[in-house]
This record gives sequence, structure tokens and C-alpha cells, in this order.
Amino acid sequence: MKLVLIRHGESIWNKENLFTGWTDVDLDAEGVSEATKAGDTLREQGFDFDICYTSYLKRAINTLNIILTRLDREWLPVYKSWKLNERHYGALQGLNKSAIAEQYGEEQLELWRRSFDTRPPALEESDERNPKFATPYRNEDPSLLPLTESLKDTFDRVVPYFNEVIKRDMENRKHVLVAAHGNSLRALVKHLENISDQDIVEVEIPVGVPLVYEFDDSMNFIKKYYLGQ
Amino acid sequence: MKLVLIRHGESIWNKENLFTGWTDVDLDAEGVSEATKAGDTLREQGFDFDICYTSYLKRAINTLNIILTRLDREWLPVYKSWKLNERHYGALQGLNKSAIAEQYGEEQLELWRRSFDTRPPALEESDERNPKFATPYRNEDPSLLPLTESLKDTFDRVVPYFNEVIKRDMENRKHVLVAAHGNSLRALVKHLENISDQDIVEVEIPVGVPLVYEFDDSMNFIKKYYLGQ
Repeated sequence: MKLVLIRHGESIWNKENLFTGWTDVDLDAEGVSEATKAGDTLREQGFDFDICYTSYLKRAINTLNIILTRLDREWLPVYKSWKLNERHYGALQGLNKSAIAEQYGEEQLELWRRSFDTRPPALEESDERNPKFATPYRNEDPSLLPLTESLKDTFDRVVPYFNEVIKRDMENRKHVLVAAHGNSLRALVKHLENISDQDIVEVEIPVGVPLVYEFDDSMNFIKKYYLGQ
Repeated sequence: MKLVLIRHGESIWNKENLFTGWTDVDLDAEGVSEATKAGDTLREQGFDFDICYTSYLKRAINTLNIILTRLDREWLPVYKSWKLNERHYGALQGLNKSAIAEQYGEEQLELWRRSFDTRPPALEESDERNPKFATPYRNEDPSLLPLTESLKDTFDRVVPYFNEVIKRDMENRKHVLVAAHGNSLRALVKHLENISDQDIVEVEIPVGVPLVYEFDDSMNFIKKYYLGQ
């Protein structure tokens, strides 16, 4: 039983070194090229899927669409959920990472970026970037929508979604592809490999490289590997 | 209550004047441009959606994806079903329409193209184009998969799918967008407007132009109109 994870390629804000989080910016040309390469790698290595999952954010959705095109699998079912969204970076969203390092110091920046349970400063309730004001989340319970998130907060939405939805497909012998984000995938990887709160700090998932997890029949993790590296 | 239908734009085979049916050919540059224009028209006229339906064929799926991009609605749920596929054109698929007219006469060609209940010659069971040999239909009951279809056969799969699935969303006040094909949409339009078997012969749906149906609260058809013409 295999599960394939893919982190979306470079987006417009990645290049500008801005915190993105739930900001819905698209892939840039490099990101499109990375997604294309990921799709070609999956095809060349004989991977196929029954069902796909992605977030509500277009940089992940478009990564998935490009991969499906390269696999000639446009017709596969795709389920989208905000539970797979990138970590919400609160008031840091839209700010330049170097500017934050200058203002708050490198140490604080790294704590916000990498630690398991530190939340960045939250958005104000009234901030126009509050997800409850945004169309994609109009039918969601506003009390569930974050104004900032630690990686632990992200973990606490990603892992239940995995266990209740995605894992059920895998138990039904479906081959699953998940296209998501640096931190929603770090949360999932922490769960799959049972990585400690300390060790997850060091884990980074490369963009655009298919990450394969293999499980035994009881859904125990056997091994993982990156494709095409 | 509004329902919007869109027929995919020009595909590679349209230009070559070939019968396409269930052959999974992509949009050409003109088709991409038509889909883009349809998305822009919907946006400019203030249309928005809750849920989308399309077929298993990439020319319809990609038309929908382009429209969702233009509407900034990539995150909307999209359901794909072969029940919305183009009419299966049997052994005519891949043949040139002019060549068929020369061989069988214009009258026979028009009967195959436009009449309600004439089926083109069927594919052989063993034909490699038999849908049961194709990946997208691997989980379907092979006895439901056609080797040829009259418009009536198409009607008999499209309309139950509409009534059992799409109409339920509309009754729940969802705004629905359906991206499909010349003949699967003709079948649906026949049902929505209660057009006779004779009169449907004259109905053609233009490519890439959003077709809006309005209904009263009891889901009775009030009026229809094309957008941006």
C-alpha cells in the first residue's frame, strides 16, 4: 500500500521571500515546471492513482491538475479540503522574511517557522484576511477557522482529516495522491513516521518531488523515499 | 434558481472534422481561448457557483478548470461522471465526417448526427476502443458501458444523473455549473425544456457560450438565455 505526497512548486510569493500561509497566490513559471516534472517522474516510474486530495489553495490545486495532465488522469476524482491548507501564518502573512529577521531577530524567525508549538502573532478578528470573510470558507464553522497557527494547530486539523477520510480510502486499497503544502505535509509526515516534537523542527520537504510512503496490510509504516532524485 | 451549462470549446479533432465521441482528445488553442472567454463572461456578469459537474473527458474537464481559474474559484468542488460524457459515436469515432458523407450519403450522416434514436454502427466487443478496456471505466459495470449510442441512449444516462444528483444540489439552493458536450447537453436541454423527439433534431448548442436556465421554486423551467452573445 503506497501513499504519495507532493508539495506544490514555487509560487509567486516564495520568490519574493514573503510568508504566504493561507494567501491564495498561484504557482510561478518555475512552480509549473516543477509540477510538470513531478508528473513526468510519476508516469515514468509507473505510478497510478485512484483518488486525489488537495487543499483549497490554487498553488496546490494547480500542481495537482498539472500532474493529472501529465499522467493522462484528468478524470480522477479530486477532493479539496481546507484541512490540507498550508499552516496559517497569522499576521506574518504578506511580510518579508528578511524584514522580520531584522525586526525580531533570526532566532525568533526560526521559532515561528520551524518549532512545533509556537504561534506567530494572530490576525485581528476584524482583519480583512480573517478566513471567515473569504469566499472559500463561507460554509465553514467560523469557530474552526484559524487567525494564526503553530505547526501543532496544523497537525490537529491535518491528522484527523487523514485518519477519517484519506486513510479510509487507503484501507479500501485505493492509491492516493495528496498535493499540499510545506507545513500541512510536515504535520502529516510527523504523524506517519511518529516523529517527535523536537525532531520535526529539522524536517523539511522539498518542493515538487513525489514522496512515497509504503505501508503493510495493517497500515504500519514500512519505508519512505523520494522519486526522481 | 439558476443552472449554467457550458459546452467545451474546440478540440483537436473538431478542427480535423472527425467524429470524437468518447475519444479523449484535448482542447486546441481555439478551445482554450473559448473557455477563457466563457469564464470572463461569467465573472463580468456576476455569476458564482457552489458546485461543478463535468464528464470524464479532458476537453470538458479542462474547459471547467479554465473557467474556475478565471472566476478565482479553483477550490470549488468538482464532480466528474462518465454519465455526462459525449454521446458514444460507435464505429464512427475517429472517422472523417466528409468521408462518411461520401461513403454513406449526406442523409445517412445527418441521421446519425442529429436524429433522436438512430445509433451509428457499434464498436465490436473486442475493439480496443471498447470503453470497458479503458482505465477511466475500470470500476464501472461493463454492461452499462456503450459500444454506440443514439441521442436517446445518451438521454437515458444523462437525465437520470441530472435528476438523482445535480437536481438535488439545486433543490438545496446550490448554484451549479455543468461543463459537458454537444450531445450530453442536448439530452439535458431536451429534458429541461421538454422538447419533442422531432424538434430536438434542430437544436444545436454553441461551443463555449454559457447557457443559463432559470427555474422557479418548484424547479419549473422559466426561461433560458445565452451569456455574452
